[in-house]
Amino acid sequence: MGMIGDEDHDSRVLSISEFVAVLCLCIVAGHLLEEHRWLNESIIAILIGWITGAVVLLLSKGKKSHILRFNEEVFFIYILPPIIFNAGFQVKKKEFFRNFFTIMLFGVIGVFISFVIISAGTWWLFPKIGFHGLGIEDYLALGTIFSSTDTICTLQVLHQDETPLLYSLVFGEGVVNDATSVVLFNAIQKIDASHMDSHKALSVLKDFLYLFSTSTILGVAAGLLTAYALRALYFGRHSTDREIALMVLMAYLSYMLAEILQLSGILTVFFCGIVMSHYAWYNVTEKSRITTRHTFATLSFIAETFIFLYVGMDALDLEKWKMTKTNTQTSFGIYSSVMFLTLLGRAAFVFPLSALSNYMSSDAGKSLITIKHQIVIWWAGLMRGAVSIALAFKQFTSSGVAWNPVNATMITSTVVVVLFSTLVFGILTKPLIDHLLPPHAQEHQNNKHEMNNSPRDELNLPLLSRDDSWPTGILKAKHSLTMLLERPAHTIHYYWRKFDDAHMRPVFGGPNPSSLSN
Amino acid sequence: MGMIGDEDHDSRVLSISEFVAVLCLCIVAGHLLEEHRWLNESIIAILIGWITGAVVLLLSKGKKSHILRFNEEVFFIYILPPIIFNAGFQVKKKEFFRNFFTIMLFGVIGVFISFVIISAGTWWLFPKIGFHGLGIEDYLALGTIFSSTDTICTLQVLHQDETPLLYSLVFGEGVVNDATSVVLFNAIQKIDASHMDSHKALSVLKDFLYLFSTSTILGVAAGLLTAYALRALYFGRHSTDREIALMVLMAYLSYMLAEILQLSGILTVFFCGIVMSHYAWYNVTEKSRITTRHTFATLSFIAETFIFLYVGMDALDLEKWKMTKTNTQTSFGIYSSVMFLTLLGRAAFVFPLSALSNYMSSDAGKSLITIKHQIVIWWAGLMRGAVSIALAFKQFTSSGVAWNPVNATMITSTVVVVLFSTLVFGILTKPLIDHLLPPHAQEHQNNKHEMNNSPRDELNLPLLSRDDSWPTGILKAKHSLTMLLERPAHTIHYYWRKFDDAHMRPVFGGPNPSSLSN
Repeated sequence: MGMIGDEDHDSRVLSISEFVAVLCLCIVAGHLLEEHRWLNESIIAILIGWITGAVVLLLSKGKKSHILRFNEEVFFIYILPPIIFNAGFQVKKKEFFRNFFTIMLFGVIGVFISFVIISAGTWWLFPKIGFHGLGIEDYLALGTIFSSTDTICTLQVLHQDETPLLYSLVFGEGVVNDATSVVLFNAIQKIDASHMDSHKALSVLKDFLYLFSTSTILGVAAGLLTAYALRALYFGRHSTDREIALMVLMAYLSYMLAEILQLSGILTVFFCGIVMSHYAWYNVTEKSRITTRHTFATLSFIAETFIFLYVGMDALDLEKWKMTKTNTQTSFGIYSSVMFLTLLGRAAFVFPLSALSNYMSSDAGKSLITIKHQIVIWWAGLMRGAVSIALAFKQFTSSGVAWNPVNATMITSTVVVVLFSTLVFGILTKPLIDHLLPPHAQEHQNNKHEMNNSPRDELNLPLLSRDDSWPTGILKAKHSLTMLLERPAHTIHYYWRKFDDAHMRPVFGGPNPSSLSN
Repeated sequence: MGMIGDEDHDSRVLSISEFVAVLCLCIVAGHLLEEHRWLNESIIAILIGWITGAVVLLLSKGKKSHILRFNEEVFFIYILPPIIFNAGFQVKKKEFFRNFFTIMLFGVIGVFISFVIISAGTWWLFPKIGFHGLGIEDYLALGTIFSSTDTICTLQVLHQDETPLLYSLVFGEGVVNDATSVVLFNAIQKIDASHMDSHKALSVLKDFLYLFSTSTILGVAAGLLTAYALRALYFGRHSTDREIALMVLMAYLSYMLAEILQLSGILTVFFCGIVMSHYAWYNVTEKSRITTRHTFATLSFIAETFIFLYVGMDALDLEKWKMTKTNTQTSFGIYSSVMFLTLLGRAAFVFPLSALSNYMSSDAGKSLITIKHQIVIWWAGLMRGAVSIALAFKQFTSSGVAWNPVNATMITSTVVVVLFSTLVFGILTKPLIDHLLPPHAQEHQNNKHEMNNSPRDELNLPLLSRDDSWPTGILKAKHSLTMLLERPAHTIHYYWRKFDDAHMRPVFGGPNPSSLSN
């Protein structure tokens, strides 16, 4: 009916409809090509975006390739929160908490290492290949932009049941990495980067740690409050809708609160998601459980598809390409140095930190993360995705438009790196993993061996079984002490489980609350 | 983190957060007061909105009472579609289709009667009580604004299992009525109302019928397309998320398409909802069924609460009250004449049309809609709600601000009528219905009697049971002919059911497709 008859409104309605129609097309194509050897969801969305962009470009006679103009406010307020919340919500808590230490090593320390290598590398290489004009703060931003990984491609290939450890590491690192990159990016924005010294670097670190911890606390608090309210008031008695509405609204509120308090909404909403699925989820009716799980997954799925579609369209944005003014050689120099630095930056932390994690988790030097696993982890994080694009737009554009050739070059370079890594590395992922971890063969064995098939393992990992009949008293204390010295990571997890079962779950909810309170 | 640091963005984030927090408060209060005798969800939301408005008014020292400024574009693009779609999706199809004829009588013809009475009545009464300045198009708009009912209050009191006929009539009329009001409102906007004659009136009717039929066809087509795609491709094989995403996106797309084609999105999305729940819903996995049902219900629930909250806050908008410039006596004259006309306009169609429906549906003059039921139906539609507010804002404001005293008076009058009818009539609803239909007593019997307890009824209503072993051949044809002459409404339903089972369900999906195709 065109309820609001102005021109602006009508064209917006038209653009949104076109975008929604293309999204539907992506969903159908994604379904039809699900079992395709080389393709995956992200690649399909990029390709469809590309084709759509080409059609729009032809229809508009070269004027534009976008149905919608990217707006990083929309991205950070509406698109990213559901993705990150869902990541926290769907994470396999048992695996996540068990490997918490390793995930944090990769997701936090790893990003720092990668950030330093990419920042220093681009700062050193760009002038050498004839690209000038970036300030020190731009190089620092580049470090965070290209440290944020996109593990969706790899996760679509890995099987959670066959390789639970590997899956949980790749998944866990993926989300913590996103949050770390955004927090680090923002910490850098705050400092006056023109006079950089060790004191400044320390202040970035301090800022980062402050943001990281306060944001986490806020997210956990919001999740616990929701869990407590749902448990104490038992909403399901009257209405399933209220439970679902409360979970959704509280999650969104935690994100908004973090933004208002100048914290990291991403990190807050991630931990809010973890806490909600760990406690609150058990306090709602069965129907609400199914609904929330699938609603959050669907929202996240739509948001991700949306982003890859956009990236595909953006690749054909002629304005940016025209504005670039960089010659082909320099351009390829930029692309290849960034790609090389991301490969290097990732190798520089995956292998050493895996070794460290193995050392910390194992008493006899037994490798828990095998070399093959390490290669998969390294590979999984080579793809760059939505967060890189969004951060690049934030750093180098104003409302989606690059205002000088240097900035335009950085945007096109980011788009090229995202496209290249997603398409080329993405297509190689399935064959690579099939080669490294032949399905249902040695890997399956490996995994079983690692998990709980060996009696010796079972003895050392009592924390893995919920209802373990562990010897009590002094013997237990003695053993715990030995474990703390030998395997700090697992021991922390062990004590956390004990604390959780004894004090948290009875208050905030969890599986079998009756068996715990009796 | 304040990703986008400008003032405008920050204050928007703050307002949204406050609104979300108040929404959460409403949900908790609604839950705690669920079993309260007088209150219901809408009233609680209005009261909390009122209190919030008062607090905002105090804190801003009388400057404003709103957290957010109402924008009818937001209402018609984001708030109303989920409410109407959900109404279509949750409608009990069996009851809805069985009473389709009566529902359409009330929801379409009824709105026309009410519209004529209210338009003519205000046109005749307003100058008499000293209120001038409205044009003929404003009086016509008032007719549609106050013909749109809000049956939520009554539905919260009625029991679907105890009085299925009554429930389905009130519910069905409620949604068809909303759609009809909006379509009629838009049909009136199009005509040049200054030279009104019978020819013009006929053209409004023609416009209305065109909009009504094309919008319905578009909605049905979108729903059938979704159903067919879901059935033919069987998305659930790979991913539940895709099914859910496709249903949500297609529903939204149908709404947007209708807007682009200058049709009624409301009507389109309503019929899309009906068709999706009648066919598409059976083609998805069990998990998707639960998820979609509850997701749509929750979205609708949040949207409704949002609106009543806003109405509560709007009641304290001092600017509008100051601008009104109407003396107290005239104001009360306006309020009471509008209230009187809505009472009259509704009585003028509920009782005659009920009689007509009873005559059409019954062969022996047996009253299917009892007098008590008719009173409840009349009462149920006395409350005015969100659609009235939105239409009034559309007619009398520009971007939420009334630009002259006459318009400001119409807005404040609408708010007063909505508040008064929702609060006073709403509070009386429970006692009234308890008095007219004592729970578990005579009403329960009545209902059983009406439904299928009498063997004679069973004979005349074979269409109600799915697997009826009806005598075939000539006997059947003869009986059908008799039925068509005697009970046209039920007979249409009977043939629709036959057609649906034989031709539609095998293609588009439905319960037990296997038993139908075999």
